[in-house]
Amino acid sequence: MSNPSLLILPGDGIGPEVMAEVRRIIDWFGAKRGLEFDVSEDLVGGAAYDKHGAPLHDDTMAKAQEVDAVLLGAVGGPKYDDLDFSVKPERGLLRLRKEMDLYSNLRPAQCFDALADFSSLKKDVVAGLDIMIVRELTSGVYFGEPRGIFEEGNERVGINTQRYTESEIDRVARSAFELAMRRGKKLCSMEKANVMESGILWREVVTRVGADYPEVELSHMYADAGAMQLTRWPKQFDVIVTDNLFGDLLSDLAAMLTGSLGMLPSASLGAPMANGRPKALYEPVHGSAPDIAGQGKANPIACILSFAMALRYSFDAGDEAARLEDAVNAVLADGVRTADLLGEEGVTPVSTSQMGDAILAKL
Amino acid sequence: MSNPSLLILPGDGIGPEVMAEVRRIIDWFGAKRGLEFDVSEDLVGGAAYDKHGAPLHDDTMAKAQEVDAVLLGAVGGPKYDDLDFSVKPERGLLRLRKEMDLYSNLRPAQCFDALADFSSLKKDVVAGLDIMIVRELTSGVYFGEPRGIFEEGNERVGINTQRYTESEIDRVARSAFELAMRRGKKLCSMEKANVMESGILWREVVTRVGADYPEVELSHMYADAGAMQLTRWPKQFDVIVTDNLFGDLLSDLAAMLTGSLGMLPSASLGAPMANGRPKALYEPVHGSAPDIAGQGKANPIACILSFAMALRYSFDAGDEAARLEDAVNAVLADGVRTADLLGEEGVTPVSTSQMGDAILAKL
Ligand SMILES: CC(C)[C@H](C(=O)O)[C@@H](O)C(=O)O
Ligand SMILES: CC(C)[C@H](C(=O)O)[C@@H](O)C(=O)O
Repeated sequence: MSNPSLLILPGDGIGPEVMAEVRRIIDWFGAKRGLEFDVSEDLVGGAAYDKHGAPLHDDTMAKAQEVDAVLLGAVGGPKYDDLDFSVKPERGLLRLRKEMDLYSNLRPAQCFDALADFSSLKKDVVAGLDIMIVRELTSGVYFGEPRGIFEEGNERVGINTQRYTESEIDRVARSAFELAMRRGKKLCSMEKANVMESGILWREVVTRVGADYPEVELSHMYADAGAMQLTRWPKQFDVIVTDNLFGDLLSDLAAMLTGSLGMLPSASLGAPMANGRPKALYEPVHGSAPDIAGQGKANPIACILSFAMALRYSFDAGDEAARLEDAVNAVLADGVRTADLLGEEGVTPVSTSQMGDAILAKL
Repeated sequence: MSNPSLLILPGDGIGPEVMAEVRRIIDWFGAKRGLEFDVSEDLVGGAAYDKHGAPLHDDTMAKAQEVDAVLLGAVGGPKYDDLDFSVKPERGLLRLRKEMDLYSNLRPAQCFDALADFSSLKKDVVAGLDIMIVRELTSGVYFGEPRGIFEEGNERVGINTQRYTESEIDRVARSAFELAMRRGKKLCSMEKANVMESGILWREVVTRVGADYPEVELSHMYADAGAMQLTRWPKQFDVIVTDNLFGDLLSDLAAMLTGSLGMLPSASLGAPMANGRPKALYEPVHGSAPDIAGQGKANPIACILSFAMALRYSFDAGDEAARLEDAVNAVLADGVRTADLLGEEGVTPVSTSQMGDAILAKL
């Protein structure tokens, strides 16, 4: 059997430098654990625009459809701020999500013991926090038609459409219930059913899917109350399922609760391919951080942990994922810190590649 | 000249009991400060549904259009959870907002010194916090058409429409700039212009309005980054302007940062009426809290401070508003607390009416 294939899309800003560390980790798993991958690399975002005039070349899109998993760094930067909407770096990422039909976006918000002080929240509120947000990723207001800016009378109007079919809600709800079964068996679904009909349908379908998972304790919350409760006492949650737009805000909020954005990975999963593996893209939650790009200051951990998620969700190698996660925890426990993880004076941060070294040493 | 008129809509849950304290305050201003109001009272929400089969009677709507200001308590409760969407308690509130055209919703998120410990955030992150969120309140996905649940092929689809015209954005932006001029002269506008065309138009119009306010430092942020930054370091903001749906989540998040939801008022303002006063509705940010309704436990301060906002924004009585706010602060400094403001053991909470007594005593 041939090796599983990985497409690496480092993207913009700090993407390439954090991805360089991931490649060393991938190589280690090949050499030491017999987990070899066929790795190819390509462009996305501003980097793709610079070369091809589009934030994702059709050939890259085709390759992404064929591989077993895509690893993405980050997209965007001030250089591209004035580009037309249709060729902005983000459109490359959105095209990947949409055409690979990656409907289930898993965003863990986990507070690392060694870093609990970093949160703007009180330590007892976040220490030990471990929640998973499942965000619908291929529909809703991100993709609904009609959309655009239109003339109306003597002025313009900006229009976007929130749109969810029963089957779109059903499949993402199912993936959230499956996750809840493997975790704390608690699922909270968030929408604005008090204001939006799409939220009424969302709540109805999630409730119906829940009948297939009687062991999971299902609750519903309005998304505004959800934002409040995440801020007040996030540990009340285990798994949260919500739509694309609410998920965008709520998962970023949840990520920020942990205080260490540079630590958080994500997985975007679609339907199973012929080989049984889901279509999958893995990426850190943080952005391209143009202000520190190219300086060797970036924290590669979120991107490395995104590869750990790939091991778990694409390659059925949960043990190997745990091995990598343990190595990261051990390095943190030793006090090794990139600049973003340092508050106090007097401690010298390590560089991006030194963090990679430290993790490899623990492995 | 006749007295200015106030329509009081206590609503559901704790609404009536907190509003009872506001009425005592209103009476005090009439008796002691020569500020007399013609006060009438009516039903909204579940209470209106119980009597009329609709969450807002047409006569009440007509009265709301005529008075100088409306004071609302809260709407909703589990009793009404299974009602049809069109007659839910919330629809009464939404109808008031829409038909009075209250496009500018002012939601202060202020951390009271005496209560800073109540926040789930670290004290230095929230102490002294004083930001104002201006939420567009009469358009966007709350009211856009088409909306509903429709058949499509062999399944159903839930649809809502996000929709903003240039003039809708212009007027709410102007009200936010005006506020910023009277505060710290900093305005941050939030949308998802990287994903939504309505956000592109929003950003463009806010920028254009900004040209009329050269003294105000204007910035733009994606709403997901906004949620993060509010959580990380909220004091970076002065005034925030955003749309109806983002404003719903972000203002609730900001409110929760302060840790004392029972303290926060809001104002919803429209265009000036013939007498120069804006159409206006004032209400606490908290909900109807059915779990503690009727027990005399509720904190009346948010509703009382909503009346203070009415003094300031409808009746040009900023000095009197400050007098009332000072009385509230003095009571808090004395350690008087309703149950929601108590964490530690050993302190006995005061009742809703005892809190009213204490504030009246300070006045
Ligand atoms: C870059 C942007 C298009 C994207 C989104 O809004 O989905 C990002 O914020 C995210 O959450 O992955
Ligand atoms: C009650 C509900 C309709 C309302 C809203 O969503 O606007 C509330 O959450 C608010 O923020 O005032």
